[in-house]
Amino acid sequence: MSGQAPHPALMIPGPIEFDDAVLQAMSHYSESHVGAPFVATFGETLSLLRKLFQTTNPASQPFVISGSGTLGWDQVAANLTEPGEEALVLHTGYFGDSFADCFETYSVRATQLKAPIGDRPQLPEIEAALSEKKYAVVTVTHVDTSTGVLSELPDLARMVRRVSPDTLIVVDGVCSVGCEEIAFDEWDLDVVLTASQKAVGVPAGLSILMASGRAMEKFKARKTPPTSYFASWKNWLPIMQNYEAKKPSYFATPSPQLIHALHTSLAQILARPLATRFAEHKAASRKIKDAVQALGLRQLAEKPENQANGMTAIYLPDGLTPPEVLPNLLKKGVIFAGGLHKEIATKYVRFGHMGVSVTDPARNDVDKAVAALREALGEVGYKAP
Amino acid sequence: MSGQAPHPALMIPGPIEFDDAVLQAMSHYSESHVGAPFVATFGETLSLLRKLFQTTNPASQPFVISGSGTLGWDQVAANLTEPGEEALVLHTGYFGDSFADCFETYSVRATQLKAPIGDRPQLPEIEAALSEKKYAVVTVTHVDTSTGVLSELPDLARMVRRVSPDTLIVVDGVCSVGCEEIAFDEWDLDVVLTASQKAVGVPAGLSILMASGRAMEKFKARKTPPTSYFASWKNWLPIMQNYEAKKPSYFATPSPQLIHALHTSLAQILARPLATRFAEHKAASRKIKDAVQALGLRQLAEKPENQANGMTAIYLPDGLTPPEVLPNLLKKGVIFAGGLHKEIATKYVRFGHMGVSVTDPARNDVDKAVAALREALGEVGYKAP
Repeated sequence: MSGQAPHPALMIPGPIEFDDAVLQAMSHYSESHVGAPFVATFGETLSLLRKLFQTTNPASQPFVISGSGTLGWDQVAANLTEPGEEALVLHTGYFGDSFADCFETYSVRATQLKAPIGDRPQLPEIEAALSEKKYAVVTVTHVDTSTGVLSELPDLARMVRRVSPDTLIVVDGVCSVGCEEIAFDEWDLDVVLTASQKAVGVPAGLSILMASGRAMEKFKARKTPPTSYFASWKNWLPIMQNYEAKKPSYFATPSPQLIHALHTSLAQILARPLATRFAEHKAASRKIKDAVQALGLRQLAEKPENQANGMTAIYLPDGLTPPEVLPNLLKKGVIFAGGLHKEIATKYVRFGHMGVSVTDPARNDVDKAVAALREALGEVGYKAP
Repeated sequence: MSGQAPHPALMIPGPIEFDDAVLQAMSHYSESHVGAPFVATFGETLSLLRKLFQTTNPASQPFVISGSGTLGWDQVAANLTEPGEEALVLHTGYFGDSFADCFETYSVRATQLKAPIGDRPQLPEIEAALSEKKYAVVTVTHVDTSTGVLSELPDLARMVRRVSPDTLIVVDGVCSVGCEEIAFDEWDLDVVLTASQKAVGVPAGLSILMASGRAMEKFKARKTPPTSYFASWKNWLPIMQNYEAKKPSYFATPSPQLIHALHTSLAQILARPLATRFAEHKAASRKIKDAVQALGLRQLAEKPENQANGMTAIYLPDGLTPPEVLPNLLKKGVIFAGGLHKEIATKYVRFGHMGVSVTDPARNDVDKAVAALREALGEVGYKAP
């Protein structure tokens, strides 16, 4: 049972449904951003993030800054690359284009390696690209929210480290952190960036990022200053280090309420083994993907190894568009998202299955959403094969 | 009566105490950022901001972006100045230095006009500076949170327009919007930027900005692209225009909960005449400054015309430092802030009096804070003259 006002189940790939205790933390009474109680909460939150990312290396550095997930791209482009350097952007949908735009804004040349819709760039072509020239960073969207394509990280990271040891491996984990396995140390990643409103389970408004010791060394060895002010680690690094050491510190005012909500959600997530959480997301995803197949529908990500576990991007039956289906779903109390990949936006819908909708046995969100999809399609005349 | 858990009264110059209904809005159930209900709320919020800033000119453009108030500086430097241009920064404390740093980050040369601590640059010297070279922008901190110094805007704006008609007038209103009179159109301002957690009465996490038609023309006439990605109006302008027209639109995910809280607070503020609100802040400030004087204490801002109405920066009696006074205040249920101006940080405290602590007759925050200050000083042996 939820203490929230009655509302449709938000089954989009973020924002997701939030736990009552997390929403309650959003109403925390006002605190000083430099007072001992809030400094302790923020400090603990940063330490909890190390556990979420499975990093025990003290050189790893977490950042939590007010902003959207997009701010994570600025953090990378402004702090880890210098004007004139090169970035290799692995493209699995909308978010590759945007990350490339972000690099170009900071005078970093972005080369995109594009896969066909629903697929991801393959290791041999990535290796060939890395061998051609020196890239400061390679970026990969772990789960592309526009296509539901899951990238494979461990083999990719191993190959990059072998072929181009100095290239930083940057993971856009906005739609994966908290629902897909990420072993930051073991996989030898350099940056994983995310946002609060997806599988981390907290309302939007926080850019969350983990940087490796290697990334921080590259940052400290910059020849030119960071090219953003608000996203500058020169400004934020001492603040994050001080908060984690429980010392007050000021650059720009953080959001105590959002930090309390993040603290609450991380404590809930980490109260159980992460492996259990990931297995639950896999099981829910399997069930949904089986139901989609039984309905005779195709996913954008056709190959099973390309399929994300926290969302499913589903082609509508021929001739149907999201505006013909989504309002019917809403009448049944379920919200899906329309398409986002510009070439095919009118042909598919996106179904998010992350966080409490998957892990809270008291909720019935996933089954309700699957049933609603089946009924909504039936009502517009679609017959499953 | 407040529905919040018992807690000390937060009487610092931001974050401030929040109204129950605003905190309740922070717990709003999860909504899609592109769904009709939230789009309507965001759109109305943008329209309400026009009223708060007293602008009816349709060319004025509001922006609300997830971030700290500091992000407003990046918005100005990245969108309204181009590399190589010049900014004149009127300095009344800590925040002038920081804004100048921000400009330099974006390759804009910042010239600071510094006043002695507690004072503000005077019109004749500002006029002389503006006559010397061409400045793209002149920035003024309306109330400097580090010193409690209030700048005078109407005469300044008139003089700038006369001496250097193309120079954009940028007001840092982080500590003034919502408690000091700002007539955006009438005073012919170009940018007023603020944050949510001060007199706007909403938890931290939103950068709020109003730009004039003149500023938007300058932006549109840029020869080079904006030099930030997350703060780029190229990315945000269509989003803000669409939301205000109640059309869904996506660049980066906004925070529905913070926007609901902002909507709630603006509706409360605008339910009464703004003049009443400003008068109440003036009256509370007068009472506090009289009490400070009766205690035999000096303000950083000695001249009455330099004194902010939403905060008071108070020199401690000789030999006393904030760590000797603030814990005593906390025991009495009141939180003040220590000094922030680096040259004299150990010699003064800051007392914020904005928002519901001033306007809600059911609260007793101001009187309680004044009494606590008097008692706390008495307990460490200080005798008022």
